[in-house]
Amino acid sequence: MERIQKTVETYLPRIVEERSIPSRFGEAISYALGGKGKRIRPFLFLQAFTMYSSREEKALPFACAIEAIHTYSLVHDDLPVMDDDDFRRGRLTAHRVYGEANALLVGDALLTVACELMTSTGKDFPPRTVQKAMEVVLKASGPEGMVGGQYLDLKGEGRKLELFQLEEIHRSKTGALITASLLSGGILGEAPEEDLEALRTYGEELGLLFQITDDLLDVVGDPEKTGKAGKKDAELGKSTYPGLLGIKGAREKAEERRLFAEKAAGKLGKKGKIFIELANFVYYRDR
Amino acid sequence: MERIQKTVETYLPRIVEERSIPSRFGEAISYALGGKGKRIRPFLFLQAFTMYSSREEKALPFACAIEAIHTYSLVHDDLPVMDDDDFRRGRLTAHRVYGEANALLVGDALLTVACELMTSTGKDFPPRTVQKAMEVVLKASGPEGMVGGQYLDLKGEGRKLELFQLEEIHRSKTGALITASLLSGGILGEAPEEDLEALRTYGEELGLLFQITDDLLDVVGDPEKTGKAGKKDAELGKSTYPGLLGIKGAREKAEERRLFAEKAAGKLGKKGKIFIELANFVYYRDR
Repeated sequence: MERIQKTVETYLPRIVEERSIPSRFGEAISYALGGKGKRIRPFLFLQAFTMYSSREEKALPFACAIEAIHTYSLVHDDLPVMDDDDFRRGRLTAHRVYGEANALLVGDALLTVACELMTSTGKDFPPRTVQKAMEVVLKASGPEGMVGGQYLDLKGEGRKLELFQLEEIHRSKTGALITASLLSGGILGEAPEEDLEALRTYGEELGLLFQITDDLLDVVGDPEKTGKAGKKDAELGKSTYPGLLGIKGAREKAEERRLFAEKAAGKLGKKGKIFIELANFVYYRDR
Repeated sequence: MERIQKTVETYLPRIVEERSIPSRFGEAISYALGGKGKRIRPFLFLQAFTMYSSREEKALPFACAIEAIHTYSLVHDDLPVMDDDDFRRGRLTAHRVYGEANALLVGDALLTVACELMTSTGKDFPPRTVQKAMEVVLKASGPEGMVGGQYLDLKGEGRKLELFQLEEIHRSKTGALITASLLSGGILGEAPEEDLEALRTYGEELGLLFQITDDLLDVVGDPEKTGKAGKKDAELGKSTYPGLLGIKGAREKAEERRLFAEKAAGKLGKKGKIFIELANFVYYRDR
């Protein structure tokens, strides 16, 4: 994981460096992309991709496009009109450093550049394949996926949600892009159909597992380690897994997800081992 | 122009209807896309495209993608942290109806869907051609184009700019996407290289002409007709052409741009006539 993290972090600054962007604006974009990001989505993408192809270097812009989409969503989500967060990835949020209007534009820039990066991989891979991979990522990022989930999340603030409503929000808000990262990696690597199905199922389970442990971290986590202010969910009146099920109940739910994720990863044979490890890593990260 | 306007307005609602979007969120997206928009960018795109191809129907999603990008930029630009506008396209701005957070997400959704729409045209046109057309539109929309221009525009508020600085802002903020609309239409229609050059030059001149008359309309226009509150620029302390050159000087500048635009359109032969008419229409719209 660390190797891919480094590869991704070496490429990310090029997004700004290789473009002629007004300098302080470019700095703000780089700031948003930097910090202690876990880079889980590009990791999932590249991991799935390299199961079927050795051309990792050529797929790197696509991986970083997914990270740029994730980052733009964080920048917009942290804005005062949304979650109003002061800290992200272990440092001040973009709007706290560059102002709200500029942070809004940083998000817009990142999403646009992400689409540019994905489009540009069309010169190195079969165009129909790139098109399919892009469709998966864009659908998962837009109003039917991540952005739609953010809308539902906002709408749900201050209201007590049922478990199925909470899952619906998370499936779209965070699950969709996590799943799309794995799936688009498989698609770009030209994985067989049954493997794509396994990647999709694994992604869905991992996404929920990720969210449950994220909720747990918000309650029991150490802000020093998570890089975010703690107990934000309660402050915003957000429904959470520990809130609905208690800490013990949420851990049981996480355990269930981990088992389903492992089962899906098992279908990928030996190559799926890394995904089983990852599910375990996510499962234990609140301990 | 009216026929294309209608074609575009018939297609736009499908962006929401054909997707499963949380219903009130879909309504907000439709609201932003609706209203009395001039639909100039999709018009330019389709006009350039149909000079070389008869497959207008297949190119329509791409045209509407450009309109969606333009619309997202208006929705974000109108937000209180940006220009804080109450009226747009003859009615209340999206954030005044649906709230700031939702308007922010509406913009994000529109940009993502725009990329989806462009990508989807890859099944009806040669993929390399679609890729080239997308690259032109995305570069013009991102931090090297429109979003970068918005950044510079914000930065320039309350400061007296020189004419060359004002032109730089407008070239990126509005000119880039206008030019890209023409250019991507030509590219998708597989126009010869020299025609693409003429389309580019025409677009650059039209973009400036458009901005100069927009500035003039802000000073001398009737809010009933423009659909926007008047004298916003002065309120925000923005530099404008009439502010720097006086009304007479700005009109002379517009005349200059119109002549250059006509010259470029002339290179397209008989097919360029419609573009000459358009430049005249834009030139006289503040009278």
